[in-house]
Parts: sequence; C-alpha cells; structure tokens
Amino acid sequence: MKHTLNTVKPAVRSLRAYSLSPHRAQVKINQNENPWDMSLVLRQEILNRFEDTRWSRYPDFFPASLHERLADFAGLRADQIIAGNGSNELIQAVLMVTIGPKKRVLINEPTFALYRQVATVLGGDVESISLTNSLQYNSSLLLSVVEERQPDVTIICSPNNPSGCVIDDQDLVKLLGIARGLVVIDEAYHEFAQHSVVPLLERHENLVVLRTFSKAMALAGLRVGYLMAEPDLVREIRKAVLPYNLNSFSQMAAEIAIERYETDLRPLVKRIINERQRLYDDLSEIKGLTPVASQGNFMVVKTEIDPKLIFEELLLRDVLIRDMTSYPMLKQYFRVSVGRPEENDELLAGLREICGE
Amino acid sequence: MKHTLNTVKPAVRSLRAYSLSPHRAQVKINQNENPWDMSLVLRQEILNRFEDTRWSRYPDFFPASLHERLADFAGLRADQIIAGNGSNELIQAVLMVTIGPKKRVLINEPTFALYRQVATVLGGDVESISLTNSLQYNSSLLLSVVEERQPDVTIICSPNNPSGCVIDDQDLVKLLGIARGLVVIDEAYHEFAQHSVVPLLERHENLVVLRTFSKAMALAGLRVGYLMAEPDLVREIRKAVLPYNLNSFSQMAAEIAIERYETDLRPLVKRIINERQRLYDDLSEIKGLTPVASQGNFMVVKTEIDPKLIFEELLLRDVLIRDMTSYPMLKQYFRVSVGRPEENDELLAGLREICGE
Repeated sequence: MKHTLNTVKPAVRSLRAYSLSPHRAQVKINQNENPWDMSLVLRQEILNRFEDTRWSRYPDFFPASLHERLADFAGLRADQIIAGNGSNELIQAVLMVTIGPKKRVLINEPTFALYRQVATVLGGDVESISLTNSLQYNSSLLLSVVEERQPDVTIICSPNNPSGCVIDDQDLVKLLGIARGLVVIDEAYHEFAQHSVVPLLERHENLVVLRTFSKAMALAGLRVGYLMAEPDLVREIRKAVLPYNLNSFSQMAAEIAIERYETDLRPLVKRIINERQRLYDDLSEIKGLTPVASQGNFMVVKTEIDPKLIFEELLLRDVLIRDMTSYPMLKQYFRVSVGRPEENDELLAGLREICGE
Repeated sequence: MKHTLNTVKPAVRSLRAYSLSPHRAQVKINQNENPWDMSLVLRQEILNRFEDTRWSRYPDFFPASLHERLADFAGLRADQIIAGNGSNELIQAVLMVTIGPKKRVLINEPTFALYRQVATVLGGDVESISLTNSLQYNSSLLLSVVEERQPDVTIICSPNNPSGCVIDDQDLVKLLGIARGLVVIDEAYHEFAQHSVVPLLERHENLVVLRTFSKAMALAGLRVGYLMAEPDLVREIRKAVLPYNLNSFSQMAAEIAIERYETDLRPLVKRIINERQRLYDDLSEIKGLTPVASQGNFMVVKTEIDPKLIFEELLLRDVLIRDMTSYPMLKQYFRVSVGRPEENDELLAGLREICGE
C-alpha cells in the first residue's frame, strides 16, 4: 500500500465507489428522468436571458433570488430554504453538520444508495431496516427502532426510489414526535404522488424536506435541488453548504421553471402518472413479470427470468433499464422509469419477446 | 436552545457562518474575478451548442469528456483528474476523505477562509502559522512545523489569496519529502504567476493540486474547478465527490474555454499582468498607501487611513473593494482585484481623493 493512502480514513478506503455503468440506448429509462424535455421555446428564452449576463462574475454567495421564488412556490419563507447543486449536495450538507464517528444514520432498504455512501465517508454508523416483503415502509418497525436507537438522522425517501412506496402521514407525525434526531424526507418524486409533507414543517422542528428539479421539473442536466426546514436549523446547515454552490445559469433556469410549472411542466406530470398506470397494467399481463405499484415516475418489476438477462436483452433492443440486483431484496427485480408512450411501447414489446409471448 | 439543534455537532454550532455582504457597484474589484468576460461570439457558440442538448437528462456520472480535455490541457492523464462544481467542492472532497475528529489541518494565515471553515465542520483541528511580516510564506517555519506536527493535510494557496505570495518550488519539494500527510497546493491564480507545480506531481504522490475556471478562465458564474493527484489517491477522493456534480452546461462551457484558451483567454491574462504592474506603481505613489507586490490578479494595500473608511468612501464613488480587516495580520489593509484599465483608473482617482492629494 502506498504511504500516502494512509492519510485517507479507513471507512473511506473500504468503501466501494458508487457508480453507474455508462451504457447508451435510444430508449433511456434507467434514471427516472422526465422523458419530456422543456419546450424549445422555453429553453430559448432561458438561453437568451443568459446571453446578456456576465459569466466571469460569481453568482450570489447564496442564491437569494431563487430562495424567494422557491419559498413562494412551496408556501414557506426564504429563511426556510437552501438551494443546492442537486439535492445530493443538500443530503451531504445535512449529514456534514450532524454526522461523524459514533453518530448514527437510519435508512430503509432498499433505497437511494447515496445516503449510505455519504454517511460512511463522514465516519458515521449506518443502520438500516428492511421494507416489508411487498416493498412498503414497515412503519411499526421504523417507529420502534427510532424510539429505541434514537438515530441522529433518519432518512426516508418518499416516494421511495426504487420501490415507489410512500410513508403514511400519520406514521410520519408519530415518528417526528418520538425522534430526538432529525427526520429527513427526500421528496424527489413527490409530484408523481401528488402529495407533500411540507405542511408538516410548521409544527415539527426536526423535519427536513428535500426536493429536486431533476424529475418533474425536467432539469436533471442543470443540477438544482432544495432543502426546507425551520430557520434556526437552516442557518446551521448552511455552514456546510459551499459558497457560490449554484451556478448562474442553473439559478436562472430554475427560476423560469418555477414560473412556468403550471403551464409547461405540470401537464407532463399528469401524462407521466397516466402512463404509469398504463405501463403497470400492461406489465402485469406479461408472463413471469409482476410490477410493484409505485407513486414515483418509475417502478420495480419482479421477474422469473434472471434480471441481468432481461437487462442485456433489452439493451440489444436499444432499451436501457436499471439493473437493481445488487440492492437488498431486489435480486429478482429490475427498475424502469415511465417513459413517453412510444418508449413504453418499445419496452413492452421487448419484454414480451424476451418473456416468450 | 431548541431541542433539535442538539443534533448539530458542537464544532458547527460554534462556527460563525462565512459570508460576504452583498454590496453592488459599477467597478467591482472585490472578488478577484477576470474583469473581461468571454467574448460575445464565444458565449453565443456555447449557448448554441447547448440549445440542442436534452436538459432533462443527467450529465455524466463523472464528466469523462471534460476529464480528457483537462488532462491534455494540464499534461496529465484523465485518471489523475477530478472536475468539480468550483474548486471549493474539491477542497471539501479532499478534506472529507481525510479529516475528522483528532485529524489536523495546517494552513498559513492570512489565507482563503474556506479551508478553515470546511475542516472545522468536519470536526478536524486547524493549526495555522503566520506569513512573515512582509506577507510572504515563512518556509523555514512551515518546514519545521510540518516535520514536528505531521498534519494530515497541509494547504498552501499559491499565489496566496489575499497576500499574493508564492511558495518557492525548492521549499515545496523539501516539504513534500518530509510530510507524511497530503500537501494541497491551491493554484487558483497560477496563470497570473506564470508558474505551476503540476510538474511535481510526477514524483510526489502526496501532492494534490487544485485549479479553477473562476479567475483566468473567466467563468466564475459557471462554477468549474479541478483537482490533480496520483491515480490511487484520485480514486479515493472521488468517493466523496457527489455523482453528477457538474452540470451539463458548465461542462460544455469549460471544454470550449480550454479549446479557446490560447486565442481568447491567455491574451487577457497578459493584459491583467501588465495592469497589475501599472496599478502597483500608481498605488505606490499615493500618500499613505503601500501596496504589496502580488503574483495574483489582486493585491493587498497597507493604508494609514482606516481601511473601513476607504471601503465606504470608495463605495460612495461606485467602486467595490474587499474589506480584509477581519483577517489575521490585515487590520491595516484592503484588497483590490486588478480590473480593466478604466476601472483601475477610477479606483486610483478615488483613492487620491480620499488620501487627500
């Protein structure tokens, strides 16, 4: 071992890098993106507005103007908001101010891999509880573990990536009542569930809510997310957010996306929700496949055939899905995003061939 | 104190938030930005290329194409590079994989405030040594402190913000030889010194070099920086870099900036270097002011009048400089960036009035 690598913390050394293999395909339904882009007209408007700005100048220390817009959008005040370079950065910031050696993070598995990754780099202990066999939140177990172990941070992705399940509001309120640590609800996919826990912020000072512009807002390429919590907590979390964290272009695009959400983006969400139902119904009719009902813009599908074979066979047909076999409980599953109708048709046609109908 | 804030680590609670007051002025010479923007033609080319991409799609997990370009640009291999959301993100990543409670970071003061901020959030101990009275690196002290204390990470900003001093190559080689921890050289301003320590990477596995697109590259608004180190160390540091950390627009703009560096950007660097000399000479002739020779695109100036008064008086004249009086050793100094010739003229005219000539 090289001498220098001794400087790297053992918890980091032993961590396997989180990565995603760079496959390409015409039908790309592996990352839960919005399958429709912003309209060309809207993109041109954003580009035109940006042309006249000075790119050599730093953005705001913190993006104050975007914070105001986000506050209006979410029904909060600006001092309850932090915008970030994707919600990933905000997950990291919450954990940086709370987690170190001997601190505990509780997650539900299977879930988004980054929570464990970041908590581990910070030297914290990650404890996890499993979803139920039907891939739903096990609320009674969650409540008893939180009561007993009192983790410093409990993270719940709702709707959960990849299972699509949602934490029940009443269970969450109980959880917030008994937890002495923070409870982070990652609402990356809330628009597709047509539900949000943001109203609970008013009465629960230990609640932190995360959202992203990468899904319903159709701006994954521009990396914008935001965090909501009570102002005193926001002030502490900001100490771990790097200055100038959000570039000027993404700030401007996010502001315009908010302005146009009702007219340009919400209709896409409705189409995705409709397609999700259609896809679920059609997948259910394919021999050997059992889709799991989801509140996100994706779903996992149980398969009697090896999921890796399905992945490879679909890739040959220019359809890229997500291999989830390395995730807990998901050895017999794959995940698909809800694509445009014609993309979902290609997926379904491929699966019918592979499953021998 | 609110119950929830107990979850926040004491080192974070006691930290004063790093911030910058949001003054505005026509002549903005407070942030060491490139006073010339990219040309309109170049900006339009970048915008045109971006119009046709799909903003709803995630960027690369890591920006592989930009890594290749940066490697060519720096004379290294792609596996020695990490691009980030500004070099701030990469300072954070280096410290995340190395620093926690009982770990030591050594800095020289006065210097860029973020090193101390991030190391403190991570629970590390920050030790510092002072520059010499003439605001130069105290290499003999630095060498003896590193030998004795063996910090896990030593950070040297060279040219140093705000003093403009550069670490001598021979001293750095000695330091790399005796240090068992990492030595980070922040080369944010290296173009203005016409010097780089990147050639030392070949023989020193404990060297980490940081660079930014925010200064000579004229893209502060887009937040791009990069880190260079030996591949095994790069692999470890990447574990603390968030996936999709660099948005698609900034990636593309950075690639084009590299392509056009020789033709479009290097000439601006030369003009800034010339203006730096002119500004130094003219400041030297103002009664009560003593500028400090700098290798960056900025300099600190010692003043017999209260620097806060100078700041306020210049702001009344629509010139925004940097108040450095809260920094160690700089109670009698202010900092100016080297602006365009006409901006420097306005600064000089204002100072002559204020200093009573």
